[in-house]
Amino acid sequence: MPKISEKGVIMPASAIRKLVPYAEAAKKKGIKVYYLNIGQPDIATPQVALDAVKNYDAKVIEYSHSAGNESYRKGLAGYYKSIGIELDYTNEIVVTVGGSEAITIAFMACFNPGDEIIIPEPYYTNYNSFAMMNGVVIKPITTTIETNFALPAIEEFEKLITPKTKGIMICNPNNPTGYLYTEDELEQLRKLVLKYDLYLFSDEVYREFCYGGRKHHSAMHLKGIENNVVLFDSTSKRYSMCGIRVGAIISHNKEVMSAALRFGQARLCPPAYGQVAAEAALQTSKTYFDEVYQEYVARRDYIVGALNKIDGVTCPDPKGAFYTIVQLPVDDTDRFCQWMLEEFSYEGQTVMMAPATGFYSKPELGKHQVRVAYVLKIEDLKNAVKCLDEALKVYPGRLK
Amino acid sequence: MPKISEKGVIMPASAIRKLVPYAEAAKKKGIKVYYLNIGQPDIATPQVALDAVKNYDAKVIEYSHSAGNESYRKGLAGYYKSIGIELDYTNEIVVTVGGSEAITIAFMACFNPGDEIIIPEPYYTNYNSFAMMNGVVIKPITTTIETNFALPAIEEFEKLITPKTKGIMICNPNNPTGYLYTEDELEQLRKLVLKYDLYLFSDEVYREFCYGGRKHHSAMHLKGIENNVVLFDSTSKRYSMCGIRVGAIISHNKEVMSAALRFGQARLCPPAYGQVAAEAALQTSKTYFDEVYQEYVARRDYIVGALNKIDGVTCPDPKGAFYTIVQLPVDDTDRFCQWMLEEFSYEGQTVMMAPATGFYSKPELGKHQVRVAYVLKIEDLKNAVKCLDEALKVYPGRLK
Repeated sequence: MPKISEKGVIMPASAIRKLVPYAEAAKKKGIKVYYLNIGQPDIATPQVALDAVKNYDAKVIEYSHSAGNESYRKGLAGYYKSIGIELDYTNEIVVTVGGSEAITIAFMACFNPGDEIIIPEPYYTNYNSFAMMNGVVIKPITTTIETNFALPAIEEFEKLITPKTKGIMICNPNNPTGYLYTEDELEQLRKLVLKYDLYLFSDEVYREFCYGGRKHHSAMHLKGIENNVVLFDSTSKRYSMCGIRVGAIISHNKEVMSAALRFGQARLCPPAYGQVAAEAALQTSKTYFDEVYQEYVARRDYIVGALNKIDGVTCPDPKGAFYTIVQLPVDDTDRFCQWMLEEFSYEGQTVMMAPATGFYSKPELGKHQVRVAYVLKIEDLKNAVKCLDEALKVYPGRLK
Repeated sequence: MPKISEKGVIMPASAIRKLVPYAEAAKKKGIKVYYLNIGQPDIATPQVALDAVKNYDAKVIEYSHSAGNESYRKGLAGYYKSIGIELDYTNEIVVTVGGSEAITIAFMACFNPGDEIIIPEPYYTNYNSFAMMNGVVIKPITTTIETNFALPAIEEFEKLITPKTKGIMICNPNNPTGYLYTEDELEQLRKLVLKYDLYLFSDEVYREFCYGGRKHHSAMHLKGIENNVVLFDSTSKRYSMCGIRVGAIISHNKEVMSAALRFGQARLCPPAYGQVAAEAALQTSKTYFDEVYQEYVARRDYIVGALNKIDGVTCPDPKGAFYTIVQLPVDDTDRFCQWMLEEFSYEGQTVMMAPATGFYSKPELGKHQVRVAYVLKIEDLKNAVKCLDEALKVYPGRLK
């Protein structure tokens, strides 16, 4: 039997999903599980997108352009124009199979094996997978719950820079912390990137979700580093249609985009139906966004307040996205989250959360933290919080 | 401005598409272009698949399972059972973003950078891209038009085997040659694979298209190498829905499939709408397949006959898929194909074909050959053949 690859051996199973078998077992026992472990919102996809697919009348579902349908790229450029970012749809946008493929393609286009990228941690776990798949070495820079996960001092970044450093990646607003970078922080990154001629990869798929009157500052607005910035876009969260698998890689750097297109040609095209939905979703009404936004504000306000009321629990105030890292008074959140699914229930209900160990390079940094995705309606969040509260009262590994 | 990667520099633009600008220019001049350059059939997608998407009533288009919807995997296992291949849908199928991603994932799961794979050439150009993306080294083994592109003698394979050789890949029926491997040829590969403990990757996406009463022999039927065989599946050609981007990687090798799933988890899931279409397409009527099959038989019979009637042209008899490699009496098919789009037209029409140079490791091997995809209706093929005939009469680089 031939050996599998070294990458095949070390590629981790999805950290977020490793508890899934326990959740399934709980469900089989008749327990209602609230899924706060994954960014799968319960928000309806815009009707205009659903209708467009229903009304799509092609007789042959053909390959699209490898960079995505021209009409969608034009439309997406229009969306970007509306937020002050001018893009040439002919060569500054390549539509991808979700935001995931945008990152994979960017890594292939920008990094040689062994090249290093600095990423503030905790960070989205799959960044590890995309890096590993492409031989990219992640140099994490730790942010802390005490500072609400703000950007570390630039000197800390500089300490990590080596001749192998090719880029910095941020997720803004941040998954998993909910942190929203300030204009000043982005300005500091701008200077750093310019000084060392690095790529600045900016994952802005939660751009629409900024709270407390705060404005989103895109890396694409930074002056003088137009050829350094590579943006990752996705329709998954903006329109609550994670399953359509339509994202984009966006940059003014023509060399990166030329390479991105050539990598894109190898896999022929992004999904046809998804592009129909994505293009139609550009017509989503302001009312939809307002309603969704108000719903998330309410969810955030509720969950942050309710979690902080539980004895021993700390939840910072997330300014964006729909995640928050929560500090729990337990010995080990991997153990605790599994225990909640395997051994605990309250009035026939329990909660699935993501242990934060998977979001840090050193799992012990996340040992007392979980990521909570507030993607369920408030009634469900209330039940989930109640479960957590009760669970913490009886969990054997509870810390004083 | 930071440098792009070495891969980004060397990744070729799609060979099949490099003539696209000339075709677009021809169209702008009002010339009707027949596209025989790409495997985009004009055959209607099964209505049952189109209807399923139209009737899909989810309110939220959610992530699916990373291995694909369980219901689709069950259905696909049923399809495979109907062709005598028993699969466990829980761990022997991972649904992918088209056949393309199946190959990418297999290469990541099975090869370390620098490992070698032997592939009979001419071969599907994007194999080069998938190999390059993953640091895999292709060792081509040349097949010739004189033998109808049959499998070379096994001794020729053995000459190429080194300690770095990890696998052999075939496309059966073959794109671009239309060759269908015989049971005896597969048996020879079976012995070779067993002797050297290699992977046998089998791209069988044209399985339904076998002509002249010949039967398709799947690599999955080969005994004693169950852990060596990795199959690539796609719905693109079987149901003429190239744009949905749904394929699969299939193997009895549990280690490969475990790695495939973990790579699949990194990109979250295959497209939701595409999976709806793919699952429904499993219910496609026998009538549909019979009609499509008869249509391709008629197209093949017509084009092979008609091409061989042109002075100086040789077209072997393709036994499968919907491609054929055609020998033309011209100095250089790259030049000729461009000339046909740029300078030639006959009664306001011309033809786009794929120069075969892109399908060989040494372009000169394909210098007098083109690949013709007979994916258009016979009336169009007739016009296309007439154009080619007239073009060869006046092309300045015509060989005697």
